[in-house]
Amino acid sequence: MLLHTAAWPEIEAYLKTSTGIIIPIGSTEQHGPNGLIGTDAICPEVIAREAGEDAGILVGPTFNVGVAQHHLGFPGSMTLRPTTMIAALNDWIDSLARHGFEKIYFLNGHGGNIATIGAAFAESYSNWSFDGEACPYELMQRNWWDLPGVMDVCRSLFPVGEGSHATASEVSVTYYAYPEHVKNVKMSPKIAPNGRFTDADDYRKTFPDGRIGSDPAQATPEKGATIVQAARKAVIQDVTAFFSR
Amino acid sequence: MLLHTAAWPEIEAYLKTSTGIIIPIGSTEQHGPNGLIGTDAICPEVIAREAGEDAGILVGPTFNVGVAQHHLGFPGSMTLRPTTMIAALNDWIDSLARHGFEKIYFLNGHGGNIATIGAAFAESYSNWSFDGEACPYELMQRNWWDLPGVMDVCRSLFPVGEGSHATASEVSVTYYAYPEHVKNVKMSPKIAPNGRFTDADDYRKTFPDGRIGSDPAQATPEKGATIVQAARKAVIQDVTAFFSR
Amino acid sequence: MLLHTAAWPEIEAYLKTSTGIIIPIGSTEQHGPNGLIGTDAICPEVIAREAGEDAGILVGPTFNVGVAQHHLGFPGSMTLRPTTMIAALNDWIDSLARHGFEKIYFLNGHGGNIATIGAAFAESYSNWSFDGEACPYELMQRNWWDLPGVMDVCRSLFPVGEGSHATASEVSVTYYAYPEHVKNVKMSPKIAPNGRFTDADDYRKTFPDGRIGSDPAQATPEKGATIVQAARKAVIQDVTAFFSR
Amino acid sequence: MLLHTAAWPEIEAYLKTSTGIIIPIGSTEQHGPNGLIGTDAICPEVIAREAGEDAGILVGPTFNVGVAQHHLGFPGSMTLRPTTMIAALNDWIDSLARHGFEKIYFLNGHGGNIATIGAAFAESYSNWSFDGEACPYELMQRNWWDLPGVMDVCRSLFPVGEGSHATASEVSVTYYAYPEHVKNVKMSPKIAPNGRFTDADDYRKTFPDGRIGSDPAQATPEKGATIVQAARKAVIQDVTAFFSR
Amino acid sequence: MLLHTAAWPEIEAYLKTSTGIIIPIGSTEQHGPNGLIGTDAICPEVIAREAGEDAGILVGPTFNVGVAQHHLGFPGSMTLRPTTMIAALNDWIDSLARHGFEKIYFLNGHGGNIATIGAAFAESYSNWSFDGEACPYELMQRNWWDLPGVMDVCRSLFPVGEGSHATASEVSVTYYAYPEHVKNVKMSPKIAPNGRFTDADDYRKTFPDGRIGSDPAQATPEKGATIVQAARKAVIQDVTAFFSR
Amino acid sequence: MLLHTAAWPEIEAYLKTSTGIIIPIGSTEQHGPNGLIGTDAICPEVIAREAGEDAGILVGPTFNVGVAQHHLGFPGSMTLRPTTMIAALNDWIDSLARHGFEKIYFLNGHGGNIATIGAAFAESYSNWSFDGEACPYELMQRNWWDLPGVMDVCRSLFPVGEGSHATASEVSVTYYAYPEHVKNVKMSPKIAPNGRFTDADDYRKTFPDGRIGSDPAQATPEKGATIVQAARKAVIQDVTAFFSR
Repeated sequence: MLLHTAAWPEIEAYLKTSTGIIIPIGSTEQHGPNGLIGTDAICPEVIAREAGEDAGILVGPTFNVGVAQHHLGFPGSMTLRPTTMIAALNDWIDSLARHGFEKIYFLNGHGGNIATIGAAFAESYSNWSFDGEACPYELMQRNWWDLPGVMDVCRSLFPVGEGSHATASEVSVTYYAYPEHVKNVKMSPKIAPNGRFTDADDYRKTFPDGRIGSDPAQATPEKGATIVQAARKAVIQDVTAFFSR
Repeated sequence: MLLHTAAWPEIEAYLKTSTGIIIPIGSTEQHGPNGLIGTDAICPEVIAREAGEDAGILVGPTFNVGVAQHHLGFPGSMTLRPTTMIAALNDWIDSLARHGFEKIYFLNGHGGNIATIGAAFAESYSNWSFDGEACPYELMQRNWWDLPGVMDVCRSLFPVGEGSHATASEVSVTYYAYPEHVKNVKMSPKIAPNGRFTDADDYRKTFPDGRIGSDPAQATPEKGATIVQAARKAVIQDVTAFFSR
Repeated sequence: MLLHTAAWPEIEAYLKTSTGIIIPIGSTEQHGPNGLIGTDAICPEVIAREAGEDAGILVGPTFNVGVAQHHLGFPGSMTLRPTTMIAALNDWIDSLARHGFEKIYFLNGHGGNIATIGAAFAESYSNWSFDGEACPYELMQRNWWDLPGVMDVCRSLFPVGEGSHATASEVSVTYYAYPEHVKNVKMSPKIAPNGRFTDADDYRKTFPDGRIGSDPAQATPEKGATIVQAARKAVIQDVTAFFSR
Repeated sequence: MLLHTAAWPEIEAYLKTSTGIIIPIGSTEQHGPNGLIGTDAICPEVIAREAGEDAGILVGPTFNVGVAQHHLGFPGSMTLRPTTMIAALNDWIDSLARHGFEKIYFLNGHGGNIATIGAAFAESYSNWSFDGEACPYELMQRNWWDLPGVMDVCRSLFPVGEGSHATASEVSVTYYAYPEHVKNVKMSPKIAPNGRFTDADDYRKTFPDGRIGSDPAQATPEKGATIVQAARKAVIQDVTAFFSR
Repeated sequence: MLLHTAAWPEIEAYLKTSTGIIIPIGSTEQHGPNGLIGTDAICPEVIAREAGEDAGILVGPTFNVGVAQHHLGFPGSMTLRPTTMIAALNDWIDSLARHGFEKIYFLNGHGGNIATIGAAFAESYSNWSFDGEACPYELMQRNWWDLPGVMDVCRSLFPVGEGSHATASEVSVTYYAYPEHVKNVKMSPKIAPNGRFTDADDYRKTFPDGRIGSDPAQATPEKGATIVQAARKAVIQDVTAFFSR
Repeated sequence: MLLHTAAWPEIEAYLKTSTGIIIPIGSTEQHGPNGLIGTDAICPEVIAREAGEDAGILVGPTFNVGVAQHHLGFPGSMTLRPTTMIAALNDWIDSLARHGFEKIYFLNGHGGNIATIGAAFAESYSNWSFDGEACPYELMQRNWWDLPGVMDVCRSLFPVGEGSHATASEVSVTYYAYPEHVKNVKMSPKIAPNGRFTDADDYRKTFPDGRIGSDPAQATPEKGATIVQAARKAVIQDVTAFFSR
């Protein structure tokens, strides 16, 4: 069930059976010459929605712009400052907690979000810890590629050129979700360089077309389907365990 | 063109032909017993996307949780504090301005957002006004129902019971967008009461099922299509005028 | 009664008879060549004070610097960032609510404040909505020129050249309040241009002497008296209705 | 000259002769049974305005609500949180600096503001110090009672019962400014107790009628006139020295 | 007892005997050519720790970076913005209050901190004053040089050239604490100039080697020992009085 | 060299040879019945200082209170909210960058800090990324236990009962640093339980004496010396590589 397409009495009914929700959380940032700018939001969204449909788990709205300051050198990339994201996440959490949600599971699609999500959770718990009252909810984040078994699938599909940004796997997932947006682009070098980065200027200098270590020309909707299939099962297991602990 | 399904070189190319973008902006909040919680985000999103496709205008990600504190008494409603939303909107604006966007048009779907969007714009301009430099971009918000001609269509479709929250028109637009989520719910009274509200407690007391002045049982996908058709044309005209002034 | 010239036992006594208060709220910004920089604070202040005296309503301190970033291109203009104003208004509201004020009526003199006041109200209510407790107070803003009947008087006094900034009416009100500061200045063109604006640089380019659409050379203390007379009655009615609902 | 009653071309002209301005800054808080709630704003306002008129110095709007959290136990008292006040003062300073004001002199009427004004100044300078650019303006605060010679006058007028809050002197100054608001109230004990305080609850317990160490029943408009006369001269000297250094 | 070298059961036990704690608070900023950058943190730390050991008073961690924006022109100086320091101090206070500490005594080593500490205290009390509940703790700050008798000792040790920044006394205290870091540096002029300052640029122009009015070449560990001896006794008395009031 | 015991000309000289600095960063929180509350600050401090002395690397002040909200259930624990810590770290970074430091290496001693330090770095870089200018500095964090080889030493010293909070290793390091504070405490069970936690209430319920998975009764100063010896070498290598890349 999707929060966005439900009416409030449906949520009221859902809360009598479960107090858990999945929030897809991603980013809006360049993903190389053939990758969709929405990749990091699309991946957790499609996985969460398929899992939610399969298992009757409620899926909330997608948090679609994250911390992507290092991508601002590429047109179309958008970012929140970490402090803004902490404030926004806390408002989302407080809204859900207000209704009695006790398990809020963020399915994350962007490495750059991890630290800030963690800080946002600590900010949220801080209010209860200072007050000395027991916090009535539990927060969890999971990167979709860290779900058990998923990286095994990715590696078997892309033994070479998976990379770490604009990866062959994530581009595949978006092609599966939006086959009409498959982009055929020649990229050179075939496999992008690896390295470190700090701000947007540094990033663009080091990674001229935006990719890191990847050869996303290998991406196909079919491979995306395989990955989503694996992730869907894994997220249901992971969420079920979280909701019931 | 959608920012989310484009790759960065496509945005780079777009910026050579236009520096304008539409950002759908809505809310995630109860819309009565048969209305979708995502109504206020879905309406501007569907209108913007159809207009963007027709006219080759870039449409950015949907800002999907707005200021809806007064709806928190109904399960599933989510809100940002106004100050959080001001911070988030300024990060979105600064990101887009960084790439050379000079005309940012927010197509709004939620009355409760209007004041905060206006405050966010003034916050953004303030930086330039204090510095004494000329701001390189212009910001505009438009409620989709305020587009020329749209309310005429709505009133002719729903001469009685349009209302002001969970309106027959907005529910129709979402039914057009998501016909699989049409909900048949009996509501009593047929036409909801009118009135004022302050916070969530006050709202729920005054409007027990969430609707204000509306009879959304009249909503159908077909009527939604008629409204979207009118709004699509109107938004193209409105945006074109804004981009070229 | 004015809060500023009362002693605390007088406020304690007042609160036993009424829990309502009027707060004049304005701005400190250029009002063209013959308009007072304090116009937007002076107008609601003089109207509120006369109404308060007539009807025994408590009038609080004037919030005298508002959101006027677009006027910073003219010497003497002052502004708050919207987020600062939201914080300050919330402190004012919380202070008054602390004493048991339940109806806080902001009589506004500046169009540029409207959005931010609205956002500040939503920020205030948010605290209660998140907590799920009933907010004990109600907030209202009213522009003095929107009081029933006032614009009719203004239009009949100034059928031509009323304008929308540095209006003939508002300048008249200030001349009524401070006849010793009537300024005889030749302005050219007689009626200022109309248009839109964003930041301070844009505003000054479009409106070189600060006026928008107005011919404030028509302003006189006598006309100001007529306007205040109309507004005073209207505000008493408006406030009385608000306090008693 | 008052900023509020000037038009912008007058400020433009003033800035060619002086880049200094006085900002009266006070508080809105209880001042005992016979003291005006606006005392701390009224005192610096009346002194600054008389001095400004005498010496042709520009006087800006009065910052009328300060840090008075400890007075919230008494009806009518209002406060800003210190962080709010720092933000507001920085917006005021940035606005004035934008126009070329280089010497901003805050004439303060409230002991509770001193620390926060100091912190606000450091906050303002910090921006320049981090950037490594020279700050183009200088900020100064002065309590009106600390002006050379003023306390001598106060002590000679009130050898007994001057006190430290709701002082005989400050009440006199307000009676001089608003003789129609002289309040005849019997207070017991004649001289209020002395002591320390933390928050509002603590303050009210220790100082039941709001006064600290004072016998303000001695206050008269005439004594107020004497004090203002002394302070007016002293502030002109102090400001002149500040503007010219 | 030092908080940092205690285990939590020891603090639990301490709280049964006393609810008071000393927090040394200083700064990390240039102290002239022969003064330690950590001077303002070291001085209150060494005094507090010796006093704590003598009298069995708990001493918390040292707040070691304060408000020192005006020193940023000299390599190694560090600062917090005042608003950052207010936030940090409030988190420290809230943490300690959470455990039942009721008397929190800040022994301060830096003049530039005084205003911001005062503002932080008012920010802390504000929460209680707005809520109308009694604040369970009391906050106090004391500059170590303002402890009764200490300046007498300093003046007798350094009748000439004590100064007001990088003073002979404070440098002596650090030499006493870290005799291995005594620095023999020739300074010219022997006694540094006096004056005012605003931001970092202004400070460095006025005080080229960082000192104000001082001749710290007189500093010795032995004189530092004498000062610490006096301050240690005075702080025990001061703290004891504060804890027991 | 320690920043705190250097004078500014020494830092000026250092900057001509190196633009790198180490900042020890920790926490002030319970570490079980025999662990020092300052453990997480002491460990990186002692390692950094020994490394700094060996290799001539500048070591700055210790950031001694971090994000430890989950420990507030134990007396003596202190925390910053993550947003406060982000603000403070940015002030520290901006101060150091002001002087030309280009490599700022945070040697971290507390797992709970990792996310917030990461968010703070992204916040810092965001300023440059929005502006489009190249950030002149690089930031890095390293947990001391993640330094190459260090965990091997820890595991060989404590094959059983190392644990994850109040570990045998970290307690040993503090005993090495402060042998006078070795605490002999019987703990039961010998090895503490493992598990997850959210806020302070949850933490204390799950881990009644504060330890997670550890048997710190094994800690000795000698074992601490072995660990510090390993970490010291590793940090010099790590820092040297960072400074020279």
